[in-house]
Parts: sequence; C-alpha cells; structure tokens
Amino acid sequence: MKSSTLLAARWAVLPLLLFSPGHLDFGQHGSAVDSAPGAIISILNEQQAAWNRGDVVAFMNGYWKSPQLTFAGSGGITRGWQNVLERYRKNYPDARAMGHLDFSGLEVHPLGSGAALVLGRWHLERTSGERGGIFTLVFQRVPEGWRIVHDHTSADERKP
Amino acid sequence: MKSSTLLAARWAVLPLLLFSPGHLDFGQHGSAVDSAPGAIISILNEQQAAWNRGDVVAFMNGYWKSPQLTFAGSGGITRGWQNVLERYRKNYPDARAMGHLDFSGLEVHPLGSGAALVLGRWHLERTSGERGGIFTLVFQRVPEGWRIVHDHTSADERKP
Repeated sequence: MKSSTLLAARWAVLPLLLFSPGHLDFGQHGSAVDSAPGAIISILNEQQAAWNRGDVVAFMNGYWKSPQLTFAGSGGITRGWQNVLERYRKNYPDARAMGHLDFSGLEVHPLGSGAALVLGRWHLERTSGERGGIFTLVFQRVPEGWRIVHDHTSADERKP
Repeated sequence: MKSSTLLAARWAVLPLLLFSPGHLDFGQHGSAVDSAPGAIISILNEQQAAWNRGDVVAFMNGYWKSPQLTFAGSGGITRGWQNVLERYRKNYPDARAMGHLDFSGLEVHPLGSGAALVLGRWHLERTSGERGGIFTLVFQRVPEGWRIVHDHTSADERKP
C-alpha cells in the first residue's frame, strides 16, 4: 500500500457512537492498529461515567499520570497530572458543581500505531446553566495502556 | 531502551526559539526522527512571515491540502483546506485586518516518526487592539512534507 493511500485510510473519519462499540468500523487495518479506537472510546466512556458520579480521581484515570501531561484550557497550559487534577477540583469542587457531562461526535484518527488524535464535543448541564464546546485529545500508548497525553478543551462563545 | 524510557524522552519538552534553529536540542534520538522539529519550526516561521506580509494562501501552505484537514476554533470544527482558507479570508479580509502575528513558546513533541504534537502561543496586534491565546497543532509527514493536519486554536478569555 502506498504511504499516501495508507495515510488517507488512517485519516478516514470514524464517527463513533458512545456505548455502541459493537458498531465501530475499523476500516481496512489489521487488529494491532485497530484496537486503538475501541480502547480509546472505552476510556472516554469511563471518564464520562466517573464524572457523572462525581469521582474526579477516576475521571483522571484517562490521563497519562505524568508530570509531562499537558492541558490547554481557557487559563493557558496546565502541566502535570497532579496540577490538572487540582485544576478540576478547583473549578468543580463537588458533584453539584460537576453536573452532568456528555461527550458526542467523537472521531478517532490514528497517528501511526502508538498515538491517536481524538476530536469531540462536550456538554455540561448544571443547575447554574449549561455549557458546551469542543476538545482535541492526543492519546498515546503508554505502559499502562492508552492515555490522554494532551488535552485542548475550549468552550463555545457565550452569547452576549 | 525500554519503551517507557523512550516515551519519556519523546515527551521531553523542547522549548524552541523562533529563528534560532541552530540551538535546537534534539535529545537522544537519531536523525530520522529528529529532523521533524527543525522542519516543523521552519514551517511555522514561514507561516508567520506569510501572515505578516498579508499572504493568506502562503500561510495556508503549512496546512495539509486535503478535505480531511480539521480546524477547531471558537465557531466549532471547520473541515477541509478550502474551508479553512475561506474562514481565514472571512475573518481577516485584508492585511490591515490580519495585523502582526507572533508565535512564541513553541514545543514540539514527536509522536512516533510520522507525527508530532506542537503547542504554542499566538499573539496578534491590530489597529483595533491585540488578542492572544494558545494553539495545539498535530503535524503529520505527508508526501509533500510535514503539514498541519489538525489545528485547535483558542483565544485567552477577554477581560470583561
């Protein structure tokens, strides 16, 4: 297979429905590469479930537990797993503040065999109102499994 | 080298100064992998120069010329090279609207041999005022060379 063809195949959009891993279309790759989208979707499902029971530490299991983890948000870049956890704890101090989180429109684009780019939308419903936006995640296969090594999350512009 | 060590080495932050490619620290990798940061920084330098002479099409040379290019911004996800170009043209119709662009704080994190994650800050000075923010770029090596295949750009929160 020519490298350009392979690249195009890798970049074929795989629209993935949460909670429907049985319907994933893995395209024309072999299983070694194609296990990534399923594993990644499972991690995002686990993150969503952890958030919705108010368990920030379990939510953080999806992230690479390393000082080199990076999170790009409205306040700039936060570095390191512990600092990202503390950022979440500060912004969402309890289950009420955390509200109900939904991910949607997930796309997994493998980047070689050990990394993947994931795009999606987030939506948060809280008693104080709802917000939403988009995220870019970079996953890498680390010794513990697939983990988010970089997260760039932004909110839709608020209507004035 | 154990895979965990290799991963840590790949993720070592490489703070790169624009216009100072002679000072790049390529760490402990071989040349096949390590050509990526230099090539990527050159592309970002060229993008910055193109923007600052009001040439949006030359700026767009840094992006993968494909319908599969994705750009995540304040208005959601824009798909395809042509649509990203039109978005820039709409938001920045002339050199005066484009103003003066600076990238800073660039970090290149290789993701295997054919992809890289790049983080950085952007700053735009225009007669109408200045703005800034952060970006996440995913580069891949395509037949034409290293190109941005995904861009997530967000602005710092405006002071109310």
